[in-house]
Amino acid sequence: MATTALPTNALESAFPNSRKVHVLGPNGMRVPMREISLSGGEPPLRVYDTSGPQQQDVHQGVPTPRLEWIRERQVSEVAEPASPPNGIPAGLIRPVLRGSGPLTQLSYARRGEITPEMEFIAVREGLAPEVVRSEVASRRAIIPANINHPELEPMIIGRNFLVKINANIGNSAVSSSIEEEVEKLQWATLWGADTVMDLSTGKHIHETRQWIIRNSAVPIGTVPIYQALEKVDGVPEELTWEIYRDTLIEQAEQGVDYFTVHAGVLLRYIPLTAERLTGIVSRGGAILAKWCLAHHRENFLYSHFREICEIMAAYDVSFSLGDGLRPGSVADANDAAQFAELETQGELNRVAWEYDVQVMNEGPGHIPMHLIKENMDKQLAWCDEAPFYTLGPLTTDIAPGYDHITSAIGAAMIGWYGTAMLCYVTPKEHLGLPNRDDVKAGVIAYKIAAHAADLGKGHPRAREWDDALSKARFEFRWDDQFNLSLDPVTARAYHDETLPAEGAKVAHFCSMCGPKFCSMKITDDIRQFAAEHGVGVEEAAELGMEEKKEEFRARGSELYVKP
Amino acid sequence: MATTALPTNALESAFPNSRKVHVLGPNGMRVPMREISLSGGEPPLRVYDTSGPQQQDVHQGVPTPRLEWIRERQVSEVAEPASPPNGIPAGLIRPVLRGSGPLTQLSYARRGEITPEMEFIAVREGLAPEVVRSEVASRRAIIPANINHPELEPMIIGRNFLVKINANIGNSAVSSSIEEEVEKLQWATLWGADTVMDLSTGKHIHETRQWIIRNSAVPIGTVPIYQALEKVDGVPEELTWEIYRDTLIEQAEQGVDYFTVHAGVLLRYIPLTAERLTGIVSRGGAILAKWCLAHHRENFLYSHFREICEIMAAYDVSFSLGDGLRPGSVADANDAAQFAELETQGELNRVAWEYDVQVMNEGPGHIPMHLIKENMDKQLAWCDEAPFYTLGPLTTDIAPGYDHITSAIGAAMIGWYGTAMLCYVTPKEHLGLPNRDDVKAGVIAYKIAAHAADLGKGHPRAREWDDALSKARFEFRWDDQFNLSLDPVTARAYHDETLPAEGAKVAHFCSMCGPKFCSMKITDDIRQFAAEHGVGVEEAAELGMEEKKEEFRARGSELYVKP
Repeated sequence: MATTALPTNALESAFPNSRKVHVLGPNGMRVPMREISLSGGEPPLRVYDTSGPQQQDVHQGVPTPRLEWIRERQVSEVAEPASPPNGIPAGLIRPVLRGSGPLTQLSYARRGEITPEMEFIAVREGLAPEVVRSEVASRRAIIPANINHPELEPMIIGRNFLVKINANIGNSAVSSSIEEEVEKLQWATLWGADTVMDLSTGKHIHETRQWIIRNSAVPIGTVPIYQALEKVDGVPEELTWEIYRDTLIEQAEQGVDYFTVHAGVLLRYIPLTAERLTGIVSRGGAILAKWCLAHHRENFLYSHFREICEIMAAYDVSFSLGDGLRPGSVADANDAAQFAELETQGELNRVAWEYDVQVMNEGPGHIPMHLIKENMDKQLAWCDEAPFYTLGPLTTDIAPGYDHITSAIGAAMIGWYGTAMLCYVTPKEHLGLPNRDDVKAGVIAYKIAAHAADLGKGHPRAREWDDALSKARFEFRWDDQFNLSLDPVTARAYHDETLPAEGAKVAHFCSMCGPKFCSMKITDDIRQFAAEHGVGVEEAAELGMEEKKEEFRARGSELYVKP
Repeated sequence: MATTALPTNALESAFPNSRKVHVLGPNGMRVPMREISLSGGEPPLRVYDTSGPQQQDVHQGVPTPRLEWIRERQVSEVAEPASPPNGIPAGLIRPVLRGSGPLTQLSYARRGEITPEMEFIAVREGLAPEVVRSEVASRRAIIPANINHPELEPMIIGRNFLVKINANIGNSAVSSSIEEEVEKLQWATLWGADTVMDLSTGKHIHETRQWIIRNSAVPIGTVPIYQALEKVDGVPEELTWEIYRDTLIEQAEQGVDYFTVHAGVLLRYIPLTAERLTGIVSRGGAILAKWCLAHHRENFLYSHFREICEIMAAYDVSFSLGDGLRPGSVADANDAAQFAELETQGELNRVAWEYDVQVMNEGPGHIPMHLIKENMDKQLAWCDEAPFYTLGPLTTDIAPGYDHITSAIGAAMIGWYGTAMLCYVTPKEHLGLPNRDDVKAGVIAYKIAAHAADLGKGHPRAREWDDALSKARFEFRWDDQFNLSLDPVTARAYHDETLPAEGAKVAHFCSMCGPKFCSMKITDDIRQFAAEHGVGVEEAAELGMEEKKEEFRARGSELYVKP
């Protein structure tokens, strides 16, 4: 039986000519990057890396670089964890810690203290540590980093940093196994998922999560109401605050980094959904709506919100305040129910901050293009610039089977407008559970959306990747062009379908136009000619071409003797 | 040997529960629509249809419904066509016509005359014929409709109509055959391509085009400089105005509906590209740049532009004024070379209109999100609101293999901003020639972008499709949801991967959440409850929920007895 979830050469197979490197940060911390080697005398390109430690035995989990940082904080070991680790391999069991004083990243940031996590992130993002601290202190960014997740390679979610993407995994009552979920985790992060949400709803929910967290270098998010509902056999009316509270503690002790909490689904908002085309489409939102109506009482997540904050502060679990009333169709976009909940999210943000708990806000959903910006504007205004974390949005409903595309359009736009993290959508959305290929398709579509948004926002380092690839393309360095792609193997395979010969990898043309028509070859000639004659942009603009005529006439014939 | 290019049941296979219907227009004209039958007492949905006549023998071509309209115009038969139809099956040969008086759609529109083509389009778009005429007269829209293309089902390109998409096909020196090209044409239009450009550059270029046009109910565009270059054995310097002119006439006589003409690539703009990261990436642009520099003369397409207009007016061929200096990387976006050419395009528009020749303007290319709108704004201003026709734009360079997605993002945005037609990009862009699957992937990504743009622009009829699908989804009419998708068979296959049993098609849950957690099922309960109790949006907003408490308490338990 293999002990690794992915093959041991997964990184090298996915990204030929890439290798994992570690940039040395303060105090010996090792910050991962993927280095892509190039030909033609070009320097290697280093890109942000989420793939985590490779070749690890899944029964032992990945290394725990944060452990020594956490141990220096005001923490104590929990003698009797909420859920004993039954059926979990010994290698995946860690001591359980609990804060005995303020220890959230927000509390440090507000005290002016730069944590090792912030230093790590500063190296990763190419920014000064003080920028990281200050963005966290101002609540414009969060560092989801449970003290019980020592395996974490810290990352940040905020609109003044690179746009991040989340991949959802998780079994359901209908299918899937624990091993598959760990493999999906590693597969999603290999392709670039910055965080992973475990949305499991079936059996072995605790055990599955333990395997996932111990093997994850990225933050793990969950929706605790799913597990709470399992504990009451799936009957929403039987949910209680106590069951939910115990579930929060159980998951916080395991190391979940952020919780989706649908505390903004208020009793009085529920009738606002009655005349919608597609009602309530969030699972969590529907569960709580049912509970509220059954008991004729306010959502217990709202009425117990301060107690939730206290629990989350003790482990530094971040809020991802759920949007239980998000629209499930373009017809329902930006309606009263959706915006009522968003306003309440803002109110809850301010409560969470009283406890120094970090918060981001979840957003929609299905939104046509012209209504997307209003979502971002209202979230910034009502939620005091807390990070926004949206699902898509999908810009049309008519393409089931292609919702990674319908939503990548909306995701790129809202990312450009300021959304900090984009929750991926796979081609199986609305239809079934994503398999390996779907997870990869979803992650890549969202890497595209996030990177397009980074370019749009003018992130200082975003364009170096595009420029490196375009330069390779223009110089016919085919292998470099493939290797710089988000998916090198696919890019190469597409090329080789038409021109499989190895010689075509150095050819100064491709199958699109054939050798005679290659525009890049022609413009290369033009550029050389211009360079030889000192015709630059400024000069041309000043003089026009008229004055150069004689010179061109005299030398022109030389231009085209290249083979 | 099969006589049809696609299987005779291609339409039914691609779109189960759909059938082609013809709406009767004025004077017995039959306007095609695809009608999707639904269950649950829902009325069928009719959608715009580009698939053309089905089950036609490719050696005979498709019917010629425009012929009687054209015959009534000032046309005469050309006794000796520019290129004798050697090697072309008799069934694909048509009499060649030439105008002997003003007969472009623009000339009729300006004289206040509504043509049968305009009436056809009015039915197709659900608008008054006068709106069509007036948009053409104002040059905000074009109807590409060569008098030698009687097979055409007329369509319109303009920003006050549905956003259109173009698919490129065409063999190159490296691969592909005539039969494959006809099949690609029918395949592309089956999935929704509104126009098709034949970009063939290899042998049999005339013969291939004849097969394509005679089998096409959508407008066909070409880039005549490609064939002209074939005639001088691929050596740009040897191109002459006379060779190009004869090529224009040859293609106009065959029935090409629009010509890409790179007349805006002026000599003085070429040095502006010298310091670009990726120089000139348009094939046509590069060919003309090379010619200009070699001869130290102004682009002959520019200097002979009025003669070109005269030729095109005689057949009602529309201009697609090429953007030969479009950027090939985000680094080169919106630079001096690109915008210099755009300004010249505007100048050329005004010349074309003197001859009543219809014009659209081609646009980029590779453009990061924040620079897209400037393209649309400048085109509207400089080109007097002529229709814009863009290639993507691609919003990042880092994803070869996925450029249908990088560009669908930009295409949706620029479509929303006002671009009238989007030229598709397939997953093979930059890498190789698209095969069947790539053409389909490109067309569907662009149908998504165009439809998202239609929704964003608030097109009055766009949302009925989304609403029909979302209603089916909410009501668990799974088959209807599949059949309303842009790609029903794929949607169904994705569903069936997890839940293959036929019973799952009527189940009130799916594999994502399983039976207990289905939010749609829960909200269906809520909606019924609200309806029974008369709790509507307005009432809830006015009264809040407090007043309803007692009533809820008394009746609440009834709510959840549904199975």
